[in-house]
Amino acid sequence: MTVSEGTAARLGARTADQMSVRRHNLSVVLNHLRVHGGRSRARIAAETGLNKATVSSLVAELLARGLVREGEIERGSVGRPGQTIELDAHNFIALGAEVATDYVSVIAMNLRGEPVSEQRLALDTAGLRAEAVLRRLAGLVDSVIDPLAAQGAVPVGLTLALPGITDPASGLVWDAPNLGWHETAVLEPLRTHLGEPGYPILIENEANAAVLAELDVRGRTSPPDLLLITGATGVGGGIVTGGRLLRGSRGFAGELGHMQVDPAGRRCRCGRVGCFETVVGLGALLRALAPADDPVRDPSIDVVQRLDVVRSRLEAGDPRALAAVEQIGDGLVQGCGSLVNIFNPGMVVLGGYFAALGPWFAPRLRSDLDTEVFAPKSGGCRIELSTLGFSAAVRGGALRATRHVFDDPGLVPYRAEAGHLSGVMS
Amino acid sequence: MTVSEGTAARLGARTADQMSVRRHNLSVVLNHLRVHGGRSRARIAAETGLNKATVSSLVAELLARGLVREGEIERGSVGRPGQTIELDAHNFIALGAEVATDYVSVIAMNLRGEPVSEQRLALDTAGLRAEAVLRRLAGLVDSVIDPLAAQGAVPVGLTLALPGITDPASGLVWDAPNLGWHETAVLEPLRTHLGEPGYPILIENEANAAVLAELDVRGRTSPPDLLLITGATGVGGGIVTGGRLLRGSRGFAGELGHMQVDPAGRRCRCGRVGCFETVVGLGALLRALAPADDPVRDPSIDVVQRLDVVRSRLEAGDPRALAAVEQIGDGLVQGCGSLVNIFNPGMVVLGGYFAALGPWFAPRLRSDLDTEVFAPKSGGCRIELSTLGFSAAVRGGALRATRHVFDDPGLVPYRAEAGHLSGVMS
Repeated sequence: MTVSEGTAARLGARTADQMSVRRHNLSVVLNHLRVHGGRSRARIAAETGLNKATVSSLVAELLARGLVREGEIERGSVGRPGQTIELDAHNFIALGAEVATDYVSVIAMNLRGEPVSEQRLALDTAGLRAEAVLRRLAGLVDSVIDPLAAQGAVPVGLTLALPGITDPASGLVWDAPNLGWHETAVLEPLRTHLGEPGYPILIENEANAAVLAELDVRGRTSPPDLLLITGATGVGGGIVTGGRLLRGSRGFAGELGHMQVDPAGRRCRCGRVGCFETVVGLGALLRALAPADDPVRDPSIDVVQRLDVVRSRLEAGDPRALAAVEQIGDGLVQGCGSLVNIFNPGMVVLGGYFAALGPWFAPRLRSDLDTEVFAPKSGGCRIELSTLGFSAAVRGGALRATRHVFDDPGLVPYRAEAGHLSGVMS
Repeated sequence: MTVSEGTAARLGARTADQMSVRRHNLSVVLNHLRVHGGRSRARIAAETGLNKATVSSLVAELLARGLVREGEIERGSVGRPGQTIELDAHNFIALGAEVATDYVSVIAMNLRGEPVSEQRLALDTAGLRAEAVLRRLAGLVDSVIDPLAAQGAVPVGLTLALPGITDPASGLVWDAPNLGWHETAVLEPLRTHLGEPGYPILIENEANAAVLAELDVRGRTSPPDLLLITGATGVGGGIVTGGRLLRGSRGFAGELGHMQVDPAGRRCRCGRVGCFETVVGLGALLRALAPADDPVRDPSIDVVQRLDVVRSRLEAGDPRALAAVEQIGDGLVQGCGSLVNIFNPGMVVLGGYFAALGPWFAPRLRSDLDTEVFAPKSGGCRIELSTLGFSAAVRGGALRATRHVFDDPGLVPYRAEAGHLSGVMS
């Protein structure tokens, strides 16, 4: 008898195949409730094609694991009114964390993908050692988790988003030039600083994480081909082709910021010359906008506050600010033009600081992009602004951290207080 | 009774659903023979999971339609030896045609994807009206078809590959700047010049057609993420992500040649400045290599012959030729670097004149690409040369033209000489 057969036998004489079918069906029911909202067992059965007895048994297990709860009585449909079952938003939290050049940040989301708590700490991360940054980040994670854990919420996972080339398998950052991190271990130090938590920790490129959040909030309005161009000190790309995140052969795709746009341009932190991010990154804007000692260029001040200052200067008609935005707009039009020629996306979403200053950048792109695009009418590409501010990457990270729960709800331990395991499993 | 029910009834009292299953199964058997080669009915049944009687009936229909033929006796397997069934390569031809800036060309391939006949005509297409070019092309198509048709081969379709943005639905070229074609009707004039043929005609971007041929010849050695960069007067891209051709939201993706690489560069035929093709297109090479009156710059001479001359100058150590190739190599390294940063492909295939001069370009890219790529070791990207010369686009076009036959073999009319239709259909 193999281990899995033995386990199955202990869990009520089901075979391994039956267990696998049951776990799959748990996932079907849980995802159905996530996508369509609370509904009765009878309606779940009718909509998923599972039989009613199976749905009742699956719901009992999801209740016991604390993943769903009983909601209101459903009325108005055929047959007797049924108790609705809905995702239980309160028992579990998924965590997204980010190390950016100007800050570290952490979000906790419930299983419905709604933010529960978020903290951002302005930090000149490039001026610190990686070890120190990760220690500060772990402290921020704890300060987000602790009050939620005190109320009984259990973390199911954490995704760390980073501005560079990451290797999820080894837990290394290969290269994050704007942080000055090269072949830097991040997963193990973070795990250590968090006290070896029981939940899984993933690492992910920040723009890839951010585009997951964009797809989530846009839902069915997302076209299958979409580019997120996210601006901070670096410029990143989250590329969706045919409805799927483009990762490339080794997971390194999306480095739009290192497309060379000017061979006579400025040297990039990556060592090359004239990269797109040297032309349109936040550094380029701030250099054009203000002298070195201007507080808008002080990385110890939260980037959102500094962009508020920039915005008020633009609204006041400050000529230097307007000229700086004009200059960045030129670069954005050119770079987006090239990318739209290559990808023919249905939508370009501007994120990060491009969205914060979106009222200046978006009209410019909407009016001028067509002249840079080979296909008629910009190939049908729409320009949209992210509504997620600097939270897109942590949100996408937290969403990714929930995925294994929805893929296999059986991974989540039973809640001790549920107290009716034998009833569920028999 | 609907029309389709009536048809089904006449064809032996099958329902529309049964017909649809049968057509699907015809496709399964035909594709099985294409991919795996000739084999007995019994083996087809064993390998496809269809029952033997069904396979016999399907094979009888494919024989009657002339799509397969009986081959050798299969020996050595279990049971009595069986007659093998194999694709019949001789009854049908698929056509690929191309209008390039320096030539028009046509290929005929059999259903195994093997070239049967190919003709290329050096032609300064940009110096002629579209109508005149399409008339010359139609003449070339006829001269390829006629001797094959005389032997009984039936054309199943034609794909016209063009260096620009095409709209298959309307049959227009939106923009092919190197031809000087803008919103130019191509499908209808070509159909007219061909005498309204019975087979379907498609239009396709030339690099997209070419990458289909590359994937076909490379088979299982193609990684799921692959870029074809094809050089002629223009530079085109055939982009494969996740194993599928990237078409974008309206089918206009892949315009790598119009990625802006130098804002201080030369004006492109598309009207923009510093496009990749102004730096690495064949025009840039020839300008660097020879004065305007040098025969290598004469578009009335076949491009393959002119490149032979360039190659012999390089082999002889001609300093101007070597400097020109060095200059183009610089641009290729930069542009490929940007594209590899964006896509992280497992392979870049150089096609067109880049492949013709591959012994000079490939080593340069292999040694220098890594310095331009953000990911370690060029993100694992290999540099390969196309082996298809200037035939890639017509080959890919012809392959596309066979697809509807393999998807629905029931579309192919019965061959009159088969003479046993009633036996097949009862």
